[in-house]
Amino acid sequence: MRILIAPDAFKGSLTSFEAAAAMTAGIQSVMPDANIITMPLADGGEGTMDVLQSACGGRICDDVLYVDDYGGRFALIESARFIGLNLASMQPDVFKRGSASLGRAVLRALDAGVRDIRIALGGSVSVDAGLGFLIALGCQVKDSRGMPVSSDLNGLMQAFRIDMNEMDQRLSSVRIMVLCDVRNRLCGGRGAVYLYGPQKGIQDSRLSEVETAMQHWGLLCEHAFGVSVMNEVGTGAAGGLGFALGLLDAQLVSGAEYVMAACGFDQKVLHMDWVVTGEGRSDVQTLHGKLPAKVADIAHRHGVKTALISGGVEPLDALDGMFDSICVSCPPGFPVYQAVSNAQPLLQSASALWAKMIKC
Amino acid sequence: MRILIAPDAFKGSLTSFEAAAAMTAGIQSVMPDANIITMPLADGGEGTMDVLQSACGGRICDDVLYVDDYGGRFALIESARFIGLNLASMQPDVFKRGSASLGRAVLRALDAGVRDIRIALGGSVSVDAGLGFLIALGCQVKDSRGMPVSSDLNGLMQAFRIDMNEMDQRLSSVRIMVLCDVRNRLCGGRGAVYLYGPQKGIQDSRLSEVETAMQHWGLLCEHAFGVSVMNEVGTGAAGGLGFALGLLDAQLVSGAEYVMAACGFDQKVLHMDWVVTGEGRSDVQTLHGKLPAKVADIAHRHGVKTALISGGVEPLDALDGMFDSICVSCPPGFPVYQAVSNAQPLLQSASALWAKMIKC
Repeated sequence: MRILIAPDAFKGSLTSFEAAAAMTAGIQSVMPDANIITMPLADGGEGTMDVLQSACGGRICDDVLYVDDYGGRFALIESARFIGLNLASMQPDVFKRGSASLGRAVLRALDAGVRDIRIALGGSVSVDAGLGFLIALGCQVKDSRGMPVSSDLNGLMQAFRIDMNEMDQRLSSVRIMVLCDVRNRLCGGRGAVYLYGPQKGIQDSRLSEVETAMQHWGLLCEHAFGVSVMNEVGTGAAGGLGFALGLLDAQLVSGAEYVMAACGFDQKVLHMDWVVTGEGRSDVQTLHGKLPAKVADIAHRHGVKTALISGGVEPLDALDGMFDSICVSCPPGFPVYQAVSNAQPLLQSASALWAKMIKC
Repeated sequence: MRILIAPDAFKGSLTSFEAAAAMTAGIQSVMPDANIITMPLADGGEGTMDVLQSACGGRICDDVLYVDDYGGRFALIESARFIGLNLASMQPDVFKRGSASLGRAVLRALDAGVRDIRIALGGSVSVDAGLGFLIALGCQVKDSRGMPVSSDLNGLMQAFRIDMNEMDQRLSSVRIMVLCDVRNRLCGGRGAVYLYGPQKGIQDSRLSEVETAMQHWGLLCEHAFGVSVMNEVGTGAAGGLGFALGLLDAQLVSGAEYVMAACGFDQKVLHMDWVVTGEGRSDVQTLHGKLPAKVADIAHRHGVKTALISGGVEPLDALDGMFDSICVSCPPGFPVYQAVSNAQPLLQSASALWAKMIKC
C-alpha cells in the first residue's frame, strides 16, 4: 500500500508538518508495512514559506525566502509574517493596522538584487488596501490639507492625493506574482470591506463609511497609476492588498496550486494507491476549491483515491462526493478548546481508524 | 529569460526529443544567454515509453518498461509498439489485425511479477475491441459451431460464445491503468467503428455490418464478465481496446496529463518566463484538449506565457486565444512531403524567428 500524506495546516492547532507527522504515526501503527510519503502543503497563508523552503530549498533572511532556481532567483514573502493574526506587533485596532511592513520586505528583496518576487497573501488582517505597502515603496499619499496620511486604515479614510514621483524605480523591472485563492473584488457587497471587514474588526456601523473611502481610494490609485484594475478578481484579497499589487501589474495565481506544484504533488501522486489530506475544518469553502479539493481533483485525474481527515467536516453529505473516504478527528460533542489542545493525538487516532477501515 | 521547451512529437516527422532539440537550437541561436530546459512530452501514443523512461528511469525488456517507484514497481506498455501503424508486422487488411500481441506483453509483465500495469493506448490501428488481447489472456472465444475464432476483427465478426475458465487468474490482483485521451464510446455514431473505422481501413459499405458485430461482442463480453461498461467513456479508444480494458476494471486517465505529471511539468513551469510547446499539426482537436492545450492551461494557471510552434496551425483564430504566441514552421504553400523531410531545419528556423520576436 502506497500512501501520500499531503495535508494543509490545521489552522489554530497544527502546522502541516505536525499534521503529516500525526497522520503518519496513526497509519503506521495499523499498517507497519505501508509505504508512506509525507508532503506537508500550504495554501498561500501562514506556513507557506516553511513548506516552500522545505520543497525548494533556499535561505530565509530577514523573513524573506530567497530561492535560486533554473537560471534565476526569486524571493518569497509570506504576508502572514508581517500582517498576520498571531503577531505580537499586531495592532488590536483595525483602523491602526497597515501593510507597510510588507512593503519594506519587498524593498529588502529589491536591495538583494531580486527582480522576481512572489507574495503569499493568505492570513493577513489589515484592511488598508495596500496603502501602507505603497507608501513604503515610495508612494506619497496626502490628505485634503496636503499632509501625509498615516500608513493604515485611518490613513486610507483621509487619502485625497497621490504623488508617484518618489516611487521606487526598480519596481518597473520587477515581476510580482501573488499566491492567493481569494477571488473577491475590492469593493461591493462581497468585497474587502463588507465581506471580510467584520471578521477583521470593522464594526457594522462603520462599514458603509469605510466602503466609501475604499471606493475613493481605488479611483484615486487607478488615476495615479493610469490603470484600471478595481474590478479584477482577487483585488479584494488580504484587505485589498490584492488591489495594490494589481496596480503594480502583479499576476494572481492560486496559492494552493502553486504550493502543490512546487512540492511536485502531481509527479508523486502518480505512484500512489491513496492520498490522505486534511485541514482544521472542512466546510462549504472546501467544496469551492480549498486545498483538499484541489488535492482530490488531481489525485482523481490520475486514478488515485483520496481520503479527507479533518478536525471537523460539515456539510458531510456534500463533501462525501468529493472524497473516497472521510474521517473526522474531533469526536462529536468535544469542546473546541480541548480539540485544539489535543489536536495531535486526536488526529493520530483518527488516522489509525482510517487505516483500519481501509485494511478490511 | 527562462524557457521551458516542452513539445509533443511531430507525428510522422520528429520525435518529441528531436523537436525539443530543434527548438532549442533555434532559440539559442538568437538568445545565447537564455536559460533553456527541455522536456520532451508525449500524449500516450507512439513515443510515450521513451519519454517516460527518460523521466522515470527504468529498464525496457521485451518492449515492456519496468519502473521501480516509491515502494512499488510498475510496467508500462505502449500499444503503438504492438499494434501501431508503422510496424513491419502490421497486416494491411484491417480485418486481419488484432490485439493479441498486446495481451502477450501483459502476460510477460505478469510473469515478471508486476501487478501494476499501465497501458498507453494511443496510435493503435486494430479494431478488434480487444478480442485478440482477451484471447491472449486466456479467454476462449468460439463461433456458432463451437470452433475458436481468429484473434482479429474477422474473429470478432464470428464471436458467439465466451468461456472464461482459462482466464489468467493473476488478473484478479492486478491494477491496470489506461493512458488515453480518447473519450468516445465503443458503439454508436461516434464509436470505434463509425468514427474511427474508416481511417483504419474499414470500407464504408461494411461499417453497419461491423457495428452490429461490435454491439453483439460488447453484450457477449458484458454477460461473460458480469459487468456493464459499454457506455463508459473511453471504451471506443484504440479500436475498442478501451472496452476490453474496462472489462478488466482498468482505470482511464489522460495520457497527456499522466506524462506531464511524470515529467514534473507542473513543478518546472513555476520558474519559467515562457513555455514553448508544439506538435506536427495543431487543429480543432488541439482546442479540445490535446497536449499543447494542457501545457498552456497549466502554464497559465501559474502565470507563465506559452508559445505554440507547430508544423501547421488551423484554425489560427481559435487557437490564438489559447496561446500567447503562435508560429507555424511549415511555410505557406510548401508541399507536405517536403515539410516532413525538412521538419528539423524548418522547426529550428521557426523557433529562431519566435525568439527574435520575443526579444524585441
